[in-house]
Amino acid sequence: MSTVAENDLASYCHSVARRAKVASRLLCALSTEVKNHWLIESSKRLESSADQILLANQSDLANASILGLSTAAIDRLTLTHGRIGKIALGLREIATLPDPIGELIDGSTRPNGLEISKVRVPLGVLFFIYESRPNVTADAAAIAVKSGNAIILRGGKEAIHSSRAIIEVMQSTACDFGIPPDAIQLVETTDREAVGEFLKLNQWIDLVIPRGGKSLIRRVVAEATMPVLKHYDGNCHIYVDQHANLGMSLQVIENAKCQRMGVCNALESLVVHRSIAANFLPKLELQMSGNGVELRGDVESQTHLKKGVLATEDDWSAEYLGPILSIRIVGSLDEAIAHINQYSSHHTDGIMTSDLSSARTFATLVDSAAVVVNASTRFNDGGELGMGAEIGISTDKLHARGPCGLRELTTYKYIVYGNGHVRT
Amino acid sequence: MSTVAENDLASYCHSVARRAKVASRLLCALSTEVKNHWLIESSKRLESSADQILLANQSDLANASILGLSTAAIDRLTLTHGRIGKIALGLREIATLPDPIGELIDGSTRPNGLEISKVRVPLGVLFFIYESRPNVTADAAAIAVKSGNAIILRGGKEAIHSSRAIIEVMQSTACDFGIPPDAIQLVETTDREAVGEFLKLNQWIDLVIPRGGKSLIRRVVAEATMPVLKHYDGNCHIYVDQHANLGMSLQVIENAKCQRMGVCNALESLVVHRSIAANFLPKLELQMSGNGVELRGDVESQTHLKKGVLATEDDWSAEYLGPILSIRIVGSLDEAIAHINQYSSHHTDGIMTSDLSSARTFATLVDSAAVVVNASTRFNDGGELGMGAEIGISTDKLHARGPCGLRELTTYKYIVYGNGHVRT
Repeated sequence: MSTVAENDLASYCHSVARRAKVASRLLCALSTEVKNHWLIESSKRLESSADQILLANQSDLANASILGLSTAAIDRLTLTHGRIGKIALGLREIATLPDPIGELIDGSTRPNGLEISKVRVPLGVLFFIYESRPNVTADAAAIAVKSGNAIILRGGKEAIHSSRAIIEVMQSTACDFGIPPDAIQLVETTDREAVGEFLKLNQWIDLVIPRGGKSLIRRVVAEATMPVLKHYDGNCHIYVDQHANLGMSLQVIENAKCQRMGVCNALESLVVHRSIAANFLPKLELQMSGNGVELRGDVESQTHLKKGVLATEDDWSAEYLGPILSIRIVGSLDEAIAHINQYSSHHTDGIMTSDLSSARTFATLVDSAAVVVNASTRFNDGGELGMGAEIGISTDKLHARGPCGLRELTTYKYIVYGNGHVRT
Repeated sequence: MSTVAENDLASYCHSVARRAKVASRLLCALSTEVKNHWLIESSKRLESSADQILLANQSDLANASILGLSTAAIDRLTLTHGRIGKIALGLREIATLPDPIGELIDGSTRPNGLEISKVRVPLGVLFFIYESRPNVTADAAAIAVKSGNAIILRGGKEAIHSSRAIIEVMQSTACDFGIPPDAIQLVETTDREAVGEFLKLNQWIDLVIPRGGKSLIRRVVAEATMPVLKHYDGNCHIYVDQHANLGMSLQVIENAKCQRMGVCNALESLVVHRSIAANFLPKLELQMSGNGVELRGDVESQTHLKKGVLATEDDWSAEYLGPILSIRIVGSLDEAIAHINQYSSHHTDGIMTSDLSSARTFATLVDSAAVVVNASTRFNDGGELGMGAEIGISTDKLHARGPCGLRELTTYKYIVYGNGHVRT
């Protein structure tokens, strides 16, 4: 028997999801003009409502120490006039992006005169689970509506007051533009069971996007009855080819490994051609020790390293997200590609080489969402690839691969016009 | 403890899937020319090997009565010189289709000089479960290789000899063109457990495509650890608007309902505007009774029908696949759209109208893979939409929607060229 509280929670979640679906039926027909005006006006009103938003943020900050947040987490949670200005700027930037909805992807007139259009349309309703950053609330709501989707926002409880203040401004602006406020709903309960309830509702929710730790994503994949847009790991490699510019390689590797260690496109593993290992690895060790990075190499690499630690089989699959780099020595490009295809999480893998044929072979045969030649793995990012705003990144192959922006939140339909056509 | 036989089966399935993955690493780099030459030469050799294939088909036909196949099933299983000629023609037609692999989907040079390409690439390994039709074996193998994918073919046991004979010809031709024969593997065991084993192997298999009854598809969705390309139902509607040409409507409805009743794009439910019901429904009843089709209508429709059966709530969701048509009367376009969005399986839904605004509103707001204006629902088919060969149809929204041809068996990757670029 379920308790009254459970029934209440289920009926709350049902109501949110059902209302989101109803809103999505109107959103799919909104003009680009209305969506952009809403974004620009929301941007203005967020700035003019800064004092209220900061007040709400104070409530969250007051709870932060009770919740035991780290200094870094408190920093991410903290809003200022400057940060609200950046959130507002983000909305204006999304207004400048091309509207994917209505794009004619393909079309033809068949020999029998039937007119076929393949047209880009919204997915419908998104369920977005994310970390406690108030800016993500505004960003996700903006990306959803611009791509014609309704969104159910489930942020961390740490930021609930700030997120509510932001969404209230965007909802009231929506009303003024004829956009149903149910298009952007914040989950008002912080009950952990609510996530499980929403994950059952595939009659109303078309896609779930979990952002957070691996255990959250595993739980969502296990429980979701609708598709999940996700990535688990970023075990990113760089292969230093025998034809690599070693100075350039050191710079790129330092950036890929050290610029931000805790992110999914950071470098975790180096594959090095045997013919340059003796020359390259001591230089790398000097540079990496200066950055406090431990090197875990295979047996052969140990002869070139002073303080190398012997790598185990687990190291080849590890996403350290910290100051460790694994090293594998190979005898050929083919061997490098085989190693990467076996152990990579297929997020981002790179090659350093001045040889065109090696670059092209690597780009063709490495089966990853992004393959990078002579550049840092850190460039696999929606902004850096020129997509504008992104809501997440996918290491799956189906539907969307790599950074997911407006277009990745759409599907298509065939629209067929005839004049009494029948099939013979 | 698993038995020896279970271990044997598992290791057989592992071996097939692993070899398919290895083959797929080579397939992704095959030139269009090689793939097309293989298709054309396979086509020739299927025709020149017709006697052997017919002999193998005799073995299947000899088993057909033991297996208790219906007359229709035996007809689908039976090969003739003419049918082998059609299979061969199918391969030559696939050779003429554009190769999706290597298509530059999008690209730009970023302000920092980084060159970004979004390039279409194969998915990898497909696991295809299908009914016992030998022509589908050849077709699926051809579509897979043309789209750069390896395929594991699990056909019905009824056609195993015919399928094996066809695949042997295509594999030996593959060898002559440097295409790994493991690219097209027929599952050699008819053990039902083999499907379950393959569905576990997401380290090697990228997509499963089940074609068959709903219970098979449900089982595959429940057990698969990789994405599934599928459709369950085709509960297709036509809405006869108040501005419809009634003569044209009768012709289109007859075609949609009666041309082939057992297919997924056949008409199952009619939605009729109140203002034309009294005029239209008696004509419809006359026509449908001539086709042996029973009408199951709502209460209001009964006043216009002589022999109408009262519909129940279940009728609105039913896919009859036979001589029954449900009828609902509505007072407006909005009501028609709401009914269809609620009960449709989102496969194919149509409107009959001469009013442009109604047609456009219906096309925008009906959330189905294909929306058809003034034409039969039977046109939602890869061939009819001009896609060439198709391997299945999807009512999902993610990845692919509607008929799935070569392009729907692909994904993309980002290829990024730099010159020592680092992120700042």
